[in-house]
Amino acid sequence: MTPKIARYLAEQSPATPCLVVDVDRVEERYRALRDALPLARIYYAVKANPAREILTRLVGLGSAFDAASWEEISMCLDAGARPADVSFGNTVKKASNIARAFAAGVDMFAFDCAEELEKLARHAPGSRVYCRLIVENEGADWPLSRKFGTTLDNARDLMLRARDLGLDPYGLSFHVGSQQTATGAYEAAIARVGMLFTDLKAAGLDLRMINLGGGFPIRYRDDVPGIDRFALAISHAMTEHFGNDLPEMIVEPGRFIVGDAGVVSSEVVLVSRRGIDDGVRWVYLDIGRFGGLAETEGEAIRYGIRTPHDGTATGPVAIAGPTCDGADIMYEKTPYALPLGLESGDRIELLSTGAYVSTYCSTGFNGLKPIQEHYI
Amino acid sequence: MTPKIARYLAEQSPATPCLVVDVDRVEERYRALRDALPLARIYYAVKANPAREILTRLVGLGSAFDAASWEEISMCLDAGARPADVSFGNTVKKASNIARAFAAGVDMFAFDCAEELEKLARHAPGSRVYCRLIVENEGADWPLSRKFGTTLDNARDLMLRARDLGLDPYGLSFHVGSQQTATGAYEAAIARVGMLFTDLKAAGLDLRMINLGGGFPIRYRDDVPGIDRFALAISHAMTEHFGNDLPEMIVEPGRFIVGDAGVVSSEVVLVSRRGIDDGVRWVYLDIGRFGGLAETEGEAIRYGIRTPHDGTATGPVAIAGPTCDGADIMYEKTPYALPLGLESGDRIELLSTGAYVSTYCSTGFNGLKPIQEHYI
Repeated sequence: MTPKIARYLAEQSPATPCLVVDVDRVEERYRALRDALPLARIYYAVKANPAREILTRLVGLGSAFDAASWEEISMCLDAGARPADVSFGNTVKKASNIARAFAAGVDMFAFDCAEELEKLARHAPGSRVYCRLIVENEGADWPLSRKFGTTLDNARDLMLRARDLGLDPYGLSFHVGSQQTATGAYEAAIARVGMLFTDLKAAGLDLRMINLGGGFPIRYRDDVPGIDRFALAISHAMTEHFGNDLPEMIVEPGRFIVGDAGVVSSEVVLVSRRGIDDGVRWVYLDIGRFGGLAETEGEAIRYGIRTPHDGTATGPVAIAGPTCDGADIMYEKTPYALPLGLESGDRIELLSTGAYVSTYCSTGFNGLKPIQEHYI
Repeated sequence: MTPKIARYLAEQSPATPCLVVDVDRVEERYRALRDALPLARIYYAVKANPAREILTRLVGLGSAFDAASWEEISMCLDAGARPADVSFGNTVKKASNIARAFAAGVDMFAFDCAEELEKLARHAPGSRVYCRLIVENEGADWPLSRKFGTTLDNARDLMLRARDLGLDPYGLSFHVGSQQTATGAYEAAIARVGMLFTDLKAAGLDLRMINLGGGFPIRYRDDVPGIDRFALAISHAMTEHFGNDLPEMIVEPGRFIVGDAGVVSSEVVLVSRRGIDDGVRWVYLDIGRFGGLAETEGEAIRYGIRTPHDGTATGPVAIAGPTCDGADIMYEKTPYALPLGLESGDRIELLSTGAYVSTYCSTGFNGLKPIQEHYI
């Protein structure tokens, strides 16, 4: 938690549950990544947090943007981004939204299958397109599964077809999974994708770009390798494959830029002992999986927690949300210990919650209002 | 899908994704349950769908309401419900909301631990309280886990303590899990809870009510036992235990009342073959897990699907949502087959989606707007 957020919470005591984001910290993280990877262009993954204050700050810093939908493109343009700096990075797009984006000046699109390529040729003729490859997600806390990406063989055919359809076969992309803590995942992916890149150049395509995706991890409860370690691994792998003839590089960080700039402030609704566990208290907060903490599904992302009693004796707890839904449990298997003095009415903080909280939040499950947001 | 919904979709063709609910069907289901279980009072579980049109219709039919939050209580009162017909059924409540509910005339509250009982004694003195017991959820497609309920031993102490605190120890409750398809689950629970009931009466408490929870299943892709089968099992188990001296009975159906009254209309965004599966096409819809289909988590609830090509040859598919999130997959392991002619732009219907869709929906993940709702 930044000193600015700590001060804000102490002085304003905003109604809970709320998300407080330090926009200066967003800027620091953007600069840190730019310094670590000076050869890569940063496309901020808008889905991580599309708040106007964040987009405006990043536009001012010269960031480009990775948008998942026409609505996100629209938010970027409203915040002052140039259309040429926005990539429509979702491989799944309605034809009508491709046309809208193209009409607004966006000319860079992701795809991973022939059907999408046909749509792009029809509704965004001549645009730069890049093909997403499926790569290993091992080491990622929030893997991206088999939903996106295609095989090397298929990608080769698709890129040649892109040219035949009058599109500009601009590059290749991959994503090693979100909160990826293994630098080797990038190296392995670059080696595979690099081979296809070289192969396609040899086949006469004017391929110019490799999109390394996002996934850079942040510290939750455990240490993670610093961004310099990832930058080194990426630079090394790129140089090993391409030598001095490096293609354009793109990264699409979301969590890395905004994750640790945000804190959720929540009220403890109940601390119960119900006679069913060996000393495990159940702590119920006024925010849960359906109030924005969707990334706790499967206990995947494990937030650090601060309480007013920190420093006193602790005991094991399970942590759940405020709804009547049995699935609304954040942590039951992950060992969490909280102070024995914790009680209803206490105000606690969930740390590094700047990413993937505000928009995941449900519209009104169990009647509960969406989380309030404060950008300071 | 009711004829009224089919006609509405055909004539109005509302923008997708949208939820269309036939409120007459809600009434039919309410009446069917009332006829099957005439001795039980129905407390509609508002969280299943809190739409004003549904609450108003149910008020007119004499329904009572199970509310999960102060906000839901407020919706019920706004729709014309009497405070005496509203139960604050969440075992996890902020003290301030207990006080608000009590001030509004609500005098019936659930609890499952000593801490909550203390809050109730302070903020809703003299109210009717009922203790929730933990029971087996085997046979339920959406089990309620260890988040709620206490043991028989603990409940006994708590009910005696409720009296000592000046509360009215009104009854006992349990929940066999949502979309519970085994009638035996109710019988087993009644046998256990009935013993405690009798025991507490013998100890001098004026216990008067058993809350059987909800969980009654509806037909998705597979047949489920009819409500008469559940009614018979419940009546039999109650009579076996209590003879002619039956306590008041309460049921809290949500899904059963509104589930099959609703249909989600969605557009196919993409049908892809990406070379990674053996003939499995990936079908991407404009609604997914974060757009309201949260109950497809773990592929738990399996909706029936109608397409414009029904009756033609089909092939295996995986079905996913429109966002860039790898977790936004509805069905990858469950065998689903859809017509081979299905393509981008087709409009399909997800059946029996009246419950737990509209409010689970995220506020704007990936920039996507919340689902539109039509009550007809």
